[in-house]
Formats: sequence, C-alpha cells, structure tokens
Amino acid sequence: MATDTPTQLGMIGLGRMGANLVRRLMRDGHRCVVYDVNESAVQEMEGEGAVAARSLGDLVAKLERPRAVWLMLPAAVVQPTLDQLTELLDPDDAIIDGGNSYYRDDITRAAQLAPHRIHYLDCGTSGGVWGLERGYCLMIGGEDGPVARLDPIFRTIAPGAAPPSRHRADTPTERRRRAISTAVRAERHFVKMVHNGVEYGMMAAIAEGLSIIDHADAGLRKRAADAETTPLREPEAYQYEIDVGEVAEVWRRGSVVGSWLVDLTADALARSPQLDEFTGRVSDSGEGRWTVRAAIDEGVPAAVISTALTDRFQSRGLGEFADRVLSAMRSEFGGHAEKRSGR
Amino acid sequence: MATDTPTQLGMIGLGRMGANLVRRLMRDGHRCVVYDVNESAVQEMEGEGAVAARSLGDLVAKLERPRAVWLMLPAAVVQPTLDQLTELLDPDDAIIDGGNSYYRDDITRAAQLAPHRIHYLDCGTSGGVWGLERGYCLMIGGEDGPVARLDPIFRTIAPGAAPPSRHRADTPTERRRRAISTAVRAERHFVKMVHNGVEYGMMAAIAEGLSIIDHADAGLRKRAADAETTPLREPEAYQYEIDVGEVAEVWRRGSVVGSWLVDLTADALARSPQLDEFTGRVSDSGEGRWTVRAAIDEGVPAAVISTALTDRFQSRGLGEFADRVLSAMRSEFGGHAEKRSGR
Amino acid sequence: MATDTPTQLGMIGLGRMGANLVRRLMRDGHRCVVYDVNESAVQEMEGEGAVAARSLGDLVAKLERPRAVWLMLPAAVVQPTLDQLTELLDPDDAIIDGGNSYYRDDITRAAQLAPHRIHYLDCGTSGGVWGLERGYCLMIGGEDGPVARLDPIFRTIAPGAAPPSRHRADTPTERRRRAISTAVRAERHFVKMVHNGVEYGMMAAIAEGLSIIDHADAGLRKRAADAETTPLREPEAYQYEIDVGEVAEVWRRGSVVGSWLVDLTADALARSPQLDEFTGRVSDSGEGRWTVRAAIDEGVPAAVISTALTDRFQSRGLGEFADRVLSAMRSEFGGHAEKRSGR
Amino acid sequence: MATDTPTQLGMIGLGRMGANLVRRLMRDGHRCVVYDVNESAVQEMEGEGAVAARSLGDLVAKLERPRAVWLMLPAAVVQPTLDQLTELLDPDDAIIDGGNSYYRDDITRAAQLAPHRIHYLDCGTSGGVWGLERGYCLMIGGEDGPVARLDPIFRTIAPGAAPPSRHRADTPTERRRRAISTAVRAERHFVKMVHNGVEYGMMAAIAEGLSIIDHADAGLRKRAADAETTPLREPEAYQYEIDVGEVAEVWRRGSVVGSWLVDLTADALARSPQLDEFTGRVSDSGEGRWTVRAAIDEGVPAAVISTALTDRFQSRGLGEFADRVLSAMRSEFGGHAEKRSGR
Repeated sequence: MATDTPTQLGMIGLGRMGANLVRRLMRDGHRCVVYDVNESAVQEMEGEGAVAARSLGDLVAKLERPRAVWLMLPAAVVQPTLDQLTELLDPDDAIIDGGNSYYRDDITRAAQLAPHRIHYLDCGTSGGVWGLERGYCLMIGGEDGPVARLDPIFRTIAPGAAPPSRHRADTPTERRRRAISTAVRAERHFVKMVHNGVEYGMMAAIAEGLSIIDHADAGLRKRAADAETTPLREPEAYQYEIDVGEVAEVWRRGSVVGSWLVDLTADALARSPQLDEFTGRVSDSGEGRWTVRAAIDEGVPAAVISTALTDRFQSRGLGEFADRVLSAMRSEFGGHAEKRSGR
Repeated sequence: MATDTPTQLGMIGLGRMGANLVRRLMRDGHRCVVYDVNESAVQEMEGEGAVAARSLGDLVAKLERPRAVWLMLPAAVVQPTLDQLTELLDPDDAIIDGGNSYYRDDITRAAQLAPHRIHYLDCGTSGGVWGLERGYCLMIGGEDGPVARLDPIFRTIAPGAAPPSRHRADTPTERRRRAISTAVRAERHFVKMVHNGVEYGMMAAIAEGLSIIDHADAGLRKRAADAETTPLREPEAYQYEIDVGEVAEVWRRGSVVGSWLVDLTADALARSPQLDEFTGRVSDSGEGRWTVRAAIDEGVPAAVISTALTDRFQSRGLGEFADRVLSAMRSEFGGHAEKRSGR
Repeated sequence: MATDTPTQLGMIGLGRMGANLVRRLMRDGHRCVVYDVNESAVQEMEGEGAVAARSLGDLVAKLERPRAVWLMLPAAVVQPTLDQLTELLDPDDAIIDGGNSYYRDDITRAAQLAPHRIHYLDCGTSGGVWGLERGYCLMIGGEDGPVARLDPIFRTIAPGAAPPSRHRADTPTERRRRAISTAVRAERHFVKMVHNGVEYGMMAAIAEGLSIIDHADAGLRKRAADAETTPLREPEAYQYEIDVGEVAEVWRRGSVVGSWLVDLTADALARSPQLDEFTGRVSDSGEGRWTVRAAIDEGVPAAVISTALTDRFQSRGLGEFADRVLSAMRSEFGGHAEKRSGR
Repeated sequence: MATDTPTQLGMIGLGRMGANLVRRLMRDGHRCVVYDVNESAVQEMEGEGAVAARSLGDLVAKLERPRAVWLMLPAAVVQPTLDQLTELLDPDDAIIDGGNSYYRDDITRAAQLAPHRIHYLDCGTSGGVWGLERGYCLMIGGEDGPVARLDPIFRTIAPGAAPPSRHRADTPTERRRRAISTAVRAERHFVKMVHNGVEYGMMAAIAEGLSIIDHADAGLRKRAADAETTPLREPEAYQYEIDVGEVAEVWRRGSVVGSWLVDLTADALARSPQLDEFTGRVSDSGEGRWTVRAAIDEGVPAAVISTALTDRFQSRGLGEFADRVLSAMRSEFGGHAEKRSGR
C-alpha cells in the first residue's frame, strides 16, 4: 500500500487546495517541504508539521534527488514559477502541475523542460475543499517512469472514494491497479478540462430543475394584465408551494439524479432555504470555455455544456448589450415600450 | 385592384394596430365603423373620417349585412367581446380576429360560433407600426366563402411589400392571385404564432452578433487577475473599436443577413449608438412560448427558437434562483466566493 | 421500523418496476396481491410468494379494508383501470399511481375520485431496475391520512440509499423523519417530472463530455480539404487516443461529477468500450417535454434541459426537414452543394 | 459616380465569386487582369473581355503601379500565394483578400507585408452568387490611403442594394459617403466572420419555424403506443396540412421576418415543395465556429449562434457517440431498449 513507502514532496502554493493536499499527505506519513509567497501560509503548514521553505531555491535545496515539486498555483503564476524552477532543478527531477492549467500550455511546458531532462507531469485534481477528507480524483499525464515513481503520493491523494465497478472484476491486473489508484493517464489536462465542462452542465441541470420547482407556485401569484405580459393559461396547474430543500434531500436517496452535486445542494438548502446570501453572479474560470472550444474544434455537438457556459455569462449581465438591441428592435417594429419592473 | 370594390368593415379596438388598419382602409376608399372602450380613440378616428360607434350594439347596427367585424384587442378581452357579439350578429355575418390570439382558442371559438352560423376568420397580422405605410403581412384562416367576400379588404391591408418570387411566374392563376394578396390560408393563427417564433430567433441572432462586435475591444480592457476570472489568452485578437451602427448599416446592403430587422436595427443605432435609453429587459407576449410548445408536442427540434425564448427570460432576471443555486454549489465544493461586481 | 408493521398492498402491473416493488415488499414481510393482464407475469410473482388475482375484482376482493392499490402501468392504461377501480373500491380505500403519469392528470383524477371518498396518491418512483437492491426514491403526493397509514410500505420501498445530510442533524424531528423515509410530499407527480428533466440534462452533459474525449484524436485523422470543410487549425492539440471507459471509471471516484449516472456509464463502457451495440436513437417518454413546458409556463429559464430534450429529437432524425431547408438556403445563396459523406 | 474613374484590378482565383466580381467590374468599365490555376477558367474570362495572365508573375507584369491584386481563393491556398506575391510586388502595391479568411490570419499577414511596404486589405464579401446582379456587401479593413485609392473598385462591387436608412439623412457627409459605398471599415475580417455567425442563427430560426409548420399534421399521423413513445395529448391541435412554400412566400411580403433568406427559401420551396433533393447534411466552413470562439473569448452570451452551429454538427451525425452513451445509460438504469425505427 501507499503508506508502505512514504516519500517526500515539495508543494508550491498553499491556498485551499495546496494546503489540504499537504495535510492529507502528511497524515499518511509523507514528508512535505512547502513554499508560498504568503509567509503566514507557510508558517501555518510548518505548525502542522511541514518543512518550511523561504524561497524556491530553499525548497529545492531541502528536497532529496530525484525531486518532485507540485505546483498548486493560480494559472497566471505558473509560467514564471516554472521558468525559475527550470534553473534550479536537476536532470530527472519532476514538476507536477496540479492546478487548472489549460492543457495546451502543458504541451508547451513539457517541450520547454525536455532539453533540461526535467520531467513534467500534469495532474488534473478534482474534489474541492472536501478532498482532504474524501480523497481527490486525479487525472494524471506524463511519462511512465516518473508516474510510477510517484505512485505512493498519488495513492494517498486519490485512494478511490467509490468501490470499483462491478464489471471491473475481470479486468487485467495492471488496469485494475490503476483503477484502484483512481488515476487515469490522461495526456495533459485535457480530461480535467472536460470534467469541468461536464460539471457545468450537471450543475445547470440541477439548478434549472430546482428553479422550476421553486416557481411551481406561479399560478398563485398575481400577474400584470398588459400586452407585454403572457397570461398563464392554466394557473390551476401551478399552485404548489414546494420546499426545494426537501426535494434536493429526497433526490439524494436512490434517485437517478443522485450525485455529489445534489448532496452538496441539499446541504446548502438545509442551511439556507432560499440561498438569500447569494446574488447569483456565477463566475467561470476557464475550463468550461476551453471545453466548448475543444468541442467546436473537433466538430462534436456539445449544446448542453455550451448553454451552461452561456448561462453563466448571462448571470453576470454580459448579455446586456444584446438585450438592449432586442428592446430597440421591439420598439422599432411594434412600438413596444420596455417594462422596467415586474417579470 | 382592391379599390374597384370598396366595402365596409367594423373595427373593434383602436390601439396602434387597429387605428392604422382603419387609416389604411379609409385611404383606399373603404368605409369603417369603429369602436373602442376608450372614447377619445373613437373620436380621433371619427376626425379622420371613420363612422363612430358608441357601443358594440351601435357598431353592429351601423353595418350592412352580411357584416364583417374585425377585432384588434388584447388577448384577455377577446373572449368577452366575442360572447357579446354572438348575441348581436346575424347568420352569415363574419368576425375576424386580427390580434395575437393563441390558435387553440381559435378552434374553440370557431366551434362556438358555428351553431349561430356566424363565420369566424383568424387573421395573423404582421408588420408592426410600419404597416400603415408598407402594408401588412396577413395569415388568414377561415372558410372559403367569407374569405373570398372579404378579399378587397385583405388586398388593401396586404398589397404585397415585395415583388413575387422569380419562380412564381409560372404558378397557376389562382395561386398567383393569392400570392399577390399576400395571404396564406393558414388554418387558425398557427402560422402567425410560428412566424413570431422565427422572429425571436432572428432577432436574437442579430443581437448576439452585434454584441460580439461591440465587445471586440475586450483585449483593450483591463481584466481582474483572480482565480474567479478567466484570463484572455490572446488580447491582441480583440483590439477593435468598431462602430456597431456602421456595421448594421452596411449589413443592410446586399449581405446575406439583409432583412427588415437589420434595417430597423440600423435605424435605431443611427439615432442612439449604444441604445442607452434601453435597459435590456425584453418582454415576451406568448407566441414564442406557444411555438416552442408546438415544437415539443410535434417532437420537432427547435433549439434556436427555444434558446431565444429562454434568453428573454434571462434578460428579465427570471434565472436568478437557479443562478443562486449554482453559486451555492460552487461555494460548497470549491469554497468559491461570489464576485459582486466586475464581469 | 417499517418491518415492525408489515401490511398488505395490491399491485396492478407487473412489468420491470412493478415486479421489483413486489419483490422488495415481500422480502420485508409485506403481503402483496398482484394482477397483470399478462397471466404469466402473475404466475411468476405467485411463484415468488405473492397472492395471485385473476381480475381487478378478484384483487379487490382479496384485500382487507381499507385497501391500498398501487398502479404501475403504462400511461395509456392508467385511466381505464382507474375507471374500473372506482366502481370496485369502497370509501377510504386508496389508489397509488406510481408510474410516469403527467401531473396534470393527477389533478383531474384526484377530483374524479373525491366524490367516491377514494383517496388518490401519486407517487413518483425513481431508481430503475436497480431499485430492488438499492431501494427507490419516492416523491409522494396525497392527503396526510392515507400517506401516514401507508408509511410502512413507503419505508420498505425507500429506505434511503444515502445517509442524511450532515446539516440535517439539527432539523426538527418531524422533518427529519420524513427525510429518513426518503419521501417528499410533492403535490402530484410534479417533482418526479422535474426530476426526469434534470436527469435529461445530467445525462447529456456526461455524454457530451465523453464524446469530446472520444474525439480528442481529431488531429490524427485526415480531413477533406475542400471549401465545405473547416480546416483544423491546431491539429497538434488533438492527438490523444483516450480510453473513454477509463475516464468514466476515474470520474466515479471522488470527482465533482461523481454520480450514479457516471457509475452506470462506467459499467456500460467497461463491458463495451465503444458501445457498438447501440445506434444512438434516444427515446423520450414525456417527462422531459412536460418539464420544459412547465418552465415555459412559469417563465423560468431552463435552457440546458430544453437543449437536452431537443438533442434527443435530433438523435432520432426529427430535424431532417429543417436541415434540408438549411441545405436549400446554402445552395440558393452560395451555390453550395451538400456533401453526402464524410463529416 | 464610380464609373467616372475606371481603374484596373488583378484578380487571382476565378471560382464562382471571383469570376462574378470580374464580370461586375468589367461591366462598369474597369480593366481586369485575371489568373487561376485552372487554365480554362482564365480562358472563359478572357472570352468575356478580361486580360489573361498565365502566371502570378505575368499578372503582376500586366498591371500598372501602384498595383491592386484581389485574392478570391480557398483559405488553404491564400498563404502560399501571398508568399509568392510578396516577392513579385513593389512598395505601395496592395493585396486585397476577399475570401473567407480567419481574421487572425489577417493580423499576421498584414504584419508580414509591412516591411515590404505592401498594403494589405481584407475585404469580407457577402452576397453569394446573386452579387453579380444585386451588388455585394463589403466589409473592408486596411489603411486609409489604399482604401481611398480603391474606392472606385469598391463602389462598383458594392453600390448599395438598399436605400440608406431614413435617419441617415442628417449624418455628416463623410459618413454618408461611406454608407453609400456600402462598406464598413471593419478592421480585419472580424465583421465578416460575425456576419456569417448571424447568418447561421437566422437560417436556423427560419428552418425551425418551417419545420414546425411542416409537422403541424402530427395529430393526423398514427403514433406507436409503447412506453418509449410520448403520446400526443391533444391531437386535435395538430390537424393542419399547411403548404410550407406558401407560408414562406407570404412571409416575404411585409412581415417582420421579411429578409433575403426568406426570399431564397420561398424560391427553393416553389421549385421543390419538400426539398427532396437534399439530404439535410449541412456543412459549416469555419466562420460560425470562429464567431462562437470570439463570443467565448469576449465572455459574451451567444447561445443562439452556438446552438445553430451545434445543430449543423448534429445534421452530419457527429453526435452519434454521445447519443450511444445516452442509450447505454437508459439501458443501464431503466432497462430501456432502443427503438430502431419510427420516431
């Protein structure tokens, strides 16, 4: 097992994800050398048992060769860090990028490191703040040698949160082993990128469904009776005041839509039935965009993921100019005035 | 020509559309008896040469048999008016519904009038406030007899704003005549409903395109550099400050997207380059919804029209609960905080 | 616990779902009287311990009052069965509709049974063929009295496949009890309908993602070089031959998209890596359509679910006429000829 | 007028678009030197009055300085031709790319030509095979000097197929002049790219609408009555056999959706009422894809254009793997078998 052969890792970047990875590794007996531009983050990890480094050079010096350095950094900081590390590391050392990098950058970066004989692994990491407890899902890219060497690290991070599929029992040993380590040899962050695209679509489906349920009382509300408002033809079909949180809770238990996202949604709604602490401005951090671009380049229909992405833009008001154009057209051809309030 | 046989029409409802229809008919020599619950609207039309009626009964009394009564009313008022007219009219009289009624109501209403031997015509009318000058597009449903009898009225309203298609030259005479009268025998308002669905889709396509052009300067703007914001990878590709109004103007002239909607958009942008007088809350008045429902009932894919409809809901903030659910999920699994401003 | 108070149930309809519900109930000590128009299905259940009925009347006669009769029937057969049962049952008996009925029919049916003082419960049931083993997710509608009386039945069917949410610990007792019984008091099948709509969206998101991964080798394939084919600008970014089944397997384990649907997909791909036994014609059985209609009636954006529905229509070739219109337009304005093969 | 100052132009590429541009220019008195790799295309133009060139060098030699060379070539051939011309041309000569190039390539190419002091103009050209007769819509990018010098050429090609907007009467002279020449100073092919994206959306909206009308007889057709087929609840609402061609024809005349695309569709349907000569495989040649990518990069919602693009992929069967995944899931959770025929 992984714990048979504890090993060591350098971690650069001690945000939510980086710090939790270090904690999980240390619990399993691995030795971690840590660095962050934020000195207090380093001290916090030092307090929990990590070896503190005060600079990139210090971190490199404190690791035995062949070294393994994991980057858990915002996308914009990865390249300069990599440039510095290239100068500091030795042949056969390995760099693992575990952040949300664009897979195209991985191609460039692996090529940049090759002449220095530094190995480059890209390691899509899913599991959020819960990974500390549940373990993470890893999507690993890189050469066989360093991937095998780092196996104890990977097994600690990704022990497999679910039992293997029933039908896997008859798969060859090597394949099963990899399934058990919960890692796919996904070349470059491609698979992680698409994972996040799927995440967008699943999230949107759940959110839309709960919204339809939340508005099942439409027939109980008063509507404006003007030419700009569609009458509700059958108000008797929309007379339901349904507790959305109860619905999410029951969907968790044995239904076809049962999923970790429904679990989380049920939790959130149990604490805050109408989620009033949120405004509904939904950010996107790149991977949904890249997934849609990949679908387009490949010529593969991905209407649901595309739509989920577009809806996030809408949630942030980015469609406003287009909407003004629509209002202008309606004013031009029909003399329609905009309604400033109501729905 | 239509003017060879001037005839008479009763018009109930003197809003933008009803009043302009009356004006267009009177210019062509037809006699109009008019009624509206708003007395001043009646007086205005009287001042332009119409015969004023002070009640539905008065209007009916002032028309010769067989009568033709055109309704240009908000959807909510059509049924009660129809109920009263049923008592007042005689066999062989005709009622024409020219408003945006749901075609399913036409089915019910024609059946309701049949035992009274009152003819029911449903007449989808497109052309907006410009119809007075350009003529309207009519989509007529009803029995052959009353449709033929009312032909002079229809020809005045819908003279054909475009020349017939090249390939129509060899169509049989009867067919060409109908083409010239710019009317299709569309059973019930079905065709008008779908027309408006198509309108939603075309409007959205134009608005989205102009919005993409309006934002072609994205590479010139400063972006936040945080984990919630996607970096723009190639800012050099988005350095264009393009005059959206000039684009609409040039698209009017010989391009594949040339259309009345682009004409109107160019006009609006010429007067107001950023359309600042609009907020972008886009109403929908029912026909887009009914079109999507028809597509679903028929099992026909209509993703573009559906999406255009959904975007109107988004423009009015109706997706807010779903968006809050998304923010809640992101907070749960990734600890992501909502960005309250910026984009 | 449920098993403390075994009770009895009449089951009409012994298809996959009905038969498994009976098996699950009998395992837990409940007594089942069963009927199906297919005599051999009745005999099979009799062989497993159920009391066989040879007619609806026979089934009613073999149940003690107050009776509970569960219908698990195709939508088209529900109404005639209900009509017959209305004659046979007594006041205070209960009918439970567990099939995929349209919730609007539930409203009508409850009203139809009310004068007979027969209780009507509608019970959306999710869990598919796996429910026998895992338990089902129930979404129950109906009056408090009969719902409470049938609680032992419901607890057996829906024991809760997942532990209650962390945050539920502090919810009031009554609420927790309902959570534990895995049932939401969803008026009418509304909640089940929306559940299936969410299912459409989640399924589509997963399928699209795996398709993008399956086509990640686009840069390795030869493309036609004609004016009708878009060149792939960066083939070097699409050089990956990824085992889709491995990806589904790894996503099962701790990732954000982890879900029962991903579990099932991983199973299917483990058995058949390219799913060649399927043609890709995806049926829809109504609830997706009704969900979209509800969203439209409520004015709630549900673009992802709508799109997932439309894509099913596309998969069955229902967009062909629209596509021919597109080809005709392209031929008209650009002289483009259709490519009959290739992609 | 343009004809006051006839001038000369070299045209490379004599396909449908190139040949018609030459014809239109010669009619207006301009002198054209023409070249194509296809010798017979050169001879045909020579027969119509053009000066034939047998090579790029020959073409360059036959033009007076400062030269203007227009490229109307497939995207894949533009770059090598440009490389050769760079060697052959002199400072102050101009190259105009009139084809469907990606605007990002224009940026690179203008930079490549700058050190040679050769001007680069990119000139998005819309109007299809009809442009010969109607004139084209031009979207011109480039420096002021060469754009002004080539004005007579541009005016012949793009005289303005529609009268200027009403509201343009009061625009400053310079602006009006540019409007009259039907050209927008769109930096690079960006505007043309988006134009084609809008075209996709408008085309799809029209095609969907006509498809809904074509299927308005759904209630007259027999449906399968099995668990995989949604019953049509209200067949009486879909009893219409509507002549789709008549609808397109009437929409041409004064309706809100009136447009050149509807004109062309009406023509096509007049000749072939069900368009049986088409299979419905709809190609896409790049600009729709690039438009969606631009929208994503800018963070602008463009759901309608994205959906129209995706639907083209669907029409060519590119969603098949995803659809097989859906069928596999349905088989897994519900035991649903695929229906191999019917709808």
